[in-house]
Amino acid sequence: MSAYDELMEFARTTQALAQVAGRLGWDQETMMPRGAAPQRAEELAAMESVLHARRTDPRVGHWLDKAEASAPVEAANLRLVRRDFDRASKVPARLAAELARVTSMAQGIWAKARAEDDVAAFMPTLREVVSLKREEGAALADGADVYDALLQDFEPGASAAELEAMFARMRPRLVALREAVLDKPAPAALAGTFDEGAQMRLARQVARTLGYDMARGRVDKAVHPFSSGSGLDVRITTRTNPDDPFNSLYSTIHEVGHGAYEQNIHADHLLTPVGQGVSMGVHESQSRIYENQLGRSEAFARWLYPQMQQAFGDLSLPDAQALFAAINRVGAGYIRTEADEVHYNLHILMRFDLERDLIARRLEVEDLEAAWNARFAADFGVEVDRPSNGVLQDVHWSVGLFGYFPTYTLGNVYAGCLHTAMQRDVPDLEVGLATGDLTPATDWLRDKVQINGGLYQPRETIRRACGAEPDEEPLLAYLEQKFGALYGV
Amino acid sequence: MSAYDELMEFARTTQALAQVAGRLGWDQETMMPRGAAPQRAEELAAMESVLHARRTDPRVGHWLDKAEASAPVEAANLRLVRRDFDRASKVPARLAAELARVTSMAQGIWAKARAEDDVAAFMPTLREVVSLKREEGAALADGADVYDALLQDFEPGASAAELEAMFARMRPRLVALREAVLDKPAPAALAGTFDEGAQMRLARQVARTLGYDMARGRVDKAVHPFSSGSGLDVRITTRTNPDDPFNSLYSTIHEVGHGAYEQNIHADHLLTPVGQGVSMGVHESQSRIYENQLGRSEAFARWLYPQMQQAFGDLSLPDAQALFAAINRVGAGYIRTEADEVHYNLHILMRFDLERDLIARRLEVEDLEAAWNARFAADFGVEVDRPSNGVLQDVHWSVGLFGYFPTYTLGNVYAGCLHTAMQRDVPDLEVGLATGDLTPATDWLRDKVQINGGLYQPRETIRRACGAEPDEEPLLAYLEQKFGALYGV
Repeated sequence: MSAYDELMEFARTTQALAQVAGRLGWDQETMMPRGAAPQRAEELAAMESVLHARRTDPRVGHWLDKAEASAPVEAANLRLVRRDFDRASKVPARLAAELARVTSMAQGIWAKARAEDDVAAFMPTLREVVSLKREEGAALADGADVYDALLQDFEPGASAAELEAMFARMRPRLVALREAVLDKPAPAALAGTFDEGAQMRLARQVARTLGYDMARGRVDKAVHPFSSGSGLDVRITTRTNPDDPFNSLYSTIHEVGHGAYEQNIHADHLLTPVGQGVSMGVHESQSRIYENQLGRSEAFARWLYPQMQQAFGDLSLPDAQALFAAINRVGAGYIRTEADEVHYNLHILMRFDLERDLIARRLEVEDLEAAWNARFAADFGVEVDRPSNGVLQDVHWSVGLFGYFPTYTLGNVYAGCLHTAMQRDVPDLEVGLATGDLTPATDWLRDKVQINGGLYQPRETIRRACGAEPDEEPLLAYLEQKFGALYGV
Repeated sequence: MSAYDELMEFARTTQALAQVAGRLGWDQETMMPRGAAPQRAEELAAMESVLHARRTDPRVGHWLDKAEASAPVEAANLRLVRRDFDRASKVPARLAAELARVTSMAQGIWAKARAEDDVAAFMPTLREVVSLKREEGAALADGADVYDALLQDFEPGASAAELEAMFARMRPRLVALREAVLDKPAPAALAGTFDEGAQMRLARQVARTLGYDMARGRVDKAVHPFSSGSGLDVRITTRTNPDDPFNSLYSTIHEVGHGAYEQNIHADHLLTPVGQGVSMGVHESQSRIYENQLGRSEAFARWLYPQMQQAFGDLSLPDAQALFAAINRVGAGYIRTEADEVHYNLHILMRFDLERDLIARRLEVEDLEAAWNARFAADFGVEVDRPSNGVLQDVHWSVGLFGYFPTYTLGNVYAGCLHTAMQRDVPDLEVGLATGDLTPATDWLRDKVQINGGLYQPRETIRRACGAEPDEEPLLAYLEQKFGALYGV
């Protein structure tokens, strides 16, 4: 066996074990008896210790030294294995263990502080997390930019400087759009009570319509919707709220985007390093284009309206045009996860600036809440009323996810680029959307993006699909056009 | 850290990983998308390779050499670890790999042969399995009896000679009882169609009533009912048949017996070697006493009758006495898993004799079908009509489970002993059963048997609960008394 083949056999087993660990996470949020939590923590820790030992196994370094790639797929596999091995080798075991210990405790402390709106109860823990992440970033950066080093965990190849410049171009136009839209009257919302069983049936119907393969997946309920797994076993979850069927519907469509990406990676890559979505940004581009550019389009609303009538009976909205307006209602709000398309990226831009300042020691944890509230007032025109609506709202920082937030907006930017290219390449796109035939759109995404998995770098993945370097202009143009028309601005 | 503490920390992680592997099995039979099967096979193989490496880790031998037990629990833990380590060390890696390869293929070949009633299609594979199991048994036996060595995997401390003598005493009385009962008219069966949702609701209600803790478990549907997991996460499955609510009901009660055993082991033993059921025989004693001595008793039928009326509406049976007769109907049949209490052990006795002959080379695989059919005619008074009703009916031999079958009857024998002791120790047993208060019975089982886990050897576990050496007499007396009275013989 060649060094490459030995390395791939080892990596394949590691990937199979990682899938098992991921499925434990799915089980925990959907099926696990509530009393099993303490045992599950030990099971997860055991899996983590096995995976950690494999990721830092000295044989991997040895194989990497000797392995030669004779094809682009092999080169990509080696690149991905080397990245993970280098990362694991750079972080001292003591620091990795301390990070695992602190972040696993921090999540509970954060949840309690948020529930009690007690920012002081969380800040000492966040200070520890930030301090450890600064240390980890420095170990990874090897003298280069610390935040950039952390960013690579989520978006390999991206740089804070490039994101900063792009976000700076986006911010004034998003603030202006937000102000203009909020000056106008909002269209009617959907009113009524909606059977939760019917919501789940509609969720599964819509998932199938959007190309999610139920033979290699399933849809269940969870408190926080998520997608999990790759290859032949990709499961998604959604939630239901009797007052708001859009919550279930658009959570489902969003997770279908993530899930379809993982399902549509080329079968040859199953359980290999390239057999997974390439980055958070590209992943989010898929969930967002399904959710927004496709799922919240006027054409899709024409198909959706009779489906909703069939699921729920008569609707309070008179027609598909009213449904289109209702699923695109813009409203002021504090919470990122509830934000509409106009507000969403403004939430991200402020988190990106704040977390870069934290990592670069330009901002200390004790000043974070004040900085958050000042920035929110500036960009959203509203004062934060309480910490759970402000600095305590997101779980990310508590579990050490610094460098993750910008990938949400990067995903939106990529979705904008892909949508423009798709409109150019797929002549009957709107006809398909309006008749519930999503295959022209989803086949394009499969063949241009999803099938590649980790074969190309993230930005190259998008560039190859679009035939041009990705930038923010298509997203901004799409938002200004769609909401300008809907709100008459 | 002492050698004992190091060993226990290692064993605890191994046990947590084994729980994870077991949960994959549960998922596969209940939740897994059907298209995920090839990936799941790789995931299970990856988990198996991790577990195998831990079971044969040389450090375990080193710790075992140095560890000292200062309490009975520690001695039991060391005994259990040593048993597994010695077993893994005795079987050459080449043989273990070959057994894994052949038995994983053999199950599919067996299933196809059974479906097509094609005994010739399975025999070459079975010959391979038997040959490998003979070799494995010889490696384990180290010059002693080969079948005994295989039996230790399922019933540590048992010997074929002792089982042979006991089964020889049982066989004539069981044959005589079968003949006498079948000479009499059978009582009325339950007729009708029974809503499958109502069956699942009744299954969960009965499970709770029998003390199964839903906060540390759950009840789902599967093709073949099973129990899975130990400690804080013990899940059971059942099945439904619209024509036969007893199938669902008694599958559930049987699995509740297995599940309650695992749930009721002392919390101090969580994820340690003694923290699991001690043997297949003792496990089966729990499932059988819940299912038969408790669940098919006259007193329990008095509680069950109105529950079934509530679940399904009017029943075709007039009263609880008729229900008691219906759940104890005796009928001729070919299939072990469908057998009543009178026939069941006769199925086991013949398999025990045949598999001992196979392992001892007194019988070759090409003569197995003829030997099966002759023995069946002798004990059951009926000619086997086709292989799927005969030698092809059970999965066990295809996956290499030689030495497993006798533990079913041993479990029934133990259940008979425990039932006699319980009747002696629990004064209001029948009152509780008739009113749906199972706690007097299940508390006794918990405190006398289940709580111990693997603390004592299997036979000692039963002896301590009963205050006497276990033997077959209580089971035979129970069967002769119950079916004698029901059938007037």
